[in-house]
Amino acid sequence: MAELSKTSGIPVATIKFYLRERLLPAGERTGPNQSSYGEEHLRRLRLIRGLLEVGGLSVATARGVIDAVDSELPLAHSFGVAQRAVSTTIEPGDLDPEALAGIDRLIEDWHVSADNPGRLAAARVLETFETLGQRDERNWFSRYAAAALLVAEADLDQVAARASREAMAETVVIGTVLGDALFSGLRCAAQEHVATLRHPVVSELDPAPTRE
Amino acid sequence: MAELSKTSGIPVATIKFYLRERLLPAGERTGPNQSSYGEEHLRRLRLIRGLLEVGGLSVATARGVIDAVDSELPLAHSFGVAQRAVSTTIEPGDLDPEALAGIDRLIEDWHVSADNPGRLAAARVLETFETLGQRDERNWFSRYAAAALLVAEADLDQVAARASREAMAETVVIGTVLGDALFSGLRCAAQEHVATLRHPVVSELDPAPTRE
Repeated sequence: MAELSKTSGIPVATIKFYLRERLLPAGERTGPNQSSYGEEHLRRLRLIRGLLEVGGLSVATARGVIDAVDSELPLAHSFGVAQRAVSTTIEPGDLDPEALAGIDRLIEDWHVSADNPGRLAAARVLETFETLGQRDERNWFSRYAAAALLVAEADLDQVAARASREAMAETVVIGTVLGDALFSGLRCAAQEHVATLRHPVVSELDPAPTRE
Repeated sequence: MAELSKTSGIPVATIKFYLRERLLPAGERTGPNQSSYGEEHLRRLRLIRGLLEVGGLSVATARGVIDAVDSELPLAHSFGVAQRAVSTTIEPGDLDPEALAGIDRLIEDWHVSADNPGRLAAARVLETFETLGQRDERNWFSRYAAAALLVAEADLDQVAARASREAMAETVVIGTVLGDALFSGLRCAAQEHVATLRHPVVSELDPAPTRE
């Protein structure tokens, strides 16, 4: 365990905590006070850190995600668990039926179950747009749906490129937790790009430092 | 003011607080204890609620965003203010130069300033992917960038469709604050769709309720 701590940079006390919380599987016993930890423990430690530190999940939620990684259930199941782990629970009954119908029109060609957390979260956003007096103009929302489909296809391709089932499930949960943040950053950069192209005067009025 | 409160559903005490905090402009004085509030006050109240309740901004940050809405500066400036308002500040010096170079390769054809908060946030995600042992395979990241560009174009089209400068700036800030949440929900629904198409066996092992 001392060696695992050294290689991973994670304190022994933290590793013991992960073992107790059943986030990390026990090592192979090699003596009365000795266990051997392998490459899979190191990889699992990285996943645990990612879920807790980057994803901000609770230990209980992280355990659910890791159980899904370890299960023999199909990959789409891991997606579901990871998606639920990072979503706020929304009851369909709390939503404006109009907003829900609006989302269902956007995704009518998709195979999506009624309790998909994304469907409900997107309906909540539509509801808020409506409250704020923002209408869907020039296919704003359906262009979002088209872009989301491109990203989901890229996500599934990335998963399929992984060598083992565990590695695939890892990519599912990491991609779910971090993919939104990556897209959000790129969208923000793209907005500056498109705004600058369309209104080039900006750079003179509000000079921005250029990238080296 | 009693009428504005009734129409908007926002308590008088809250409206007074917004006036004091310079989020809401004063009404037109019509008598010693009377002011008249118009359509623009109602619209502004909606924007304030959206920023504080949905966007989760602090009063000080919301004031900065509203000042940008009111300013005569070009729209791209409002984008910048709104983007900074919802972003964590990341210092370029805290980032792995490799990750920053990775993002810059992805967006090398874009006009993006060095301090664009999205560029820095995306680099932070790339850094974390690397730590977690996730490589960019099958152009995963550049497909995110391509989708982000589509969404940014839709965002700018939506802004251009608004009738007045104030309405445009409103759409900029509301879209910036809520657009990520909409995309995230749609991506999650799209993942289920693509996973189901590619691995149809899932629906038998893990039956999901169907949408009515």
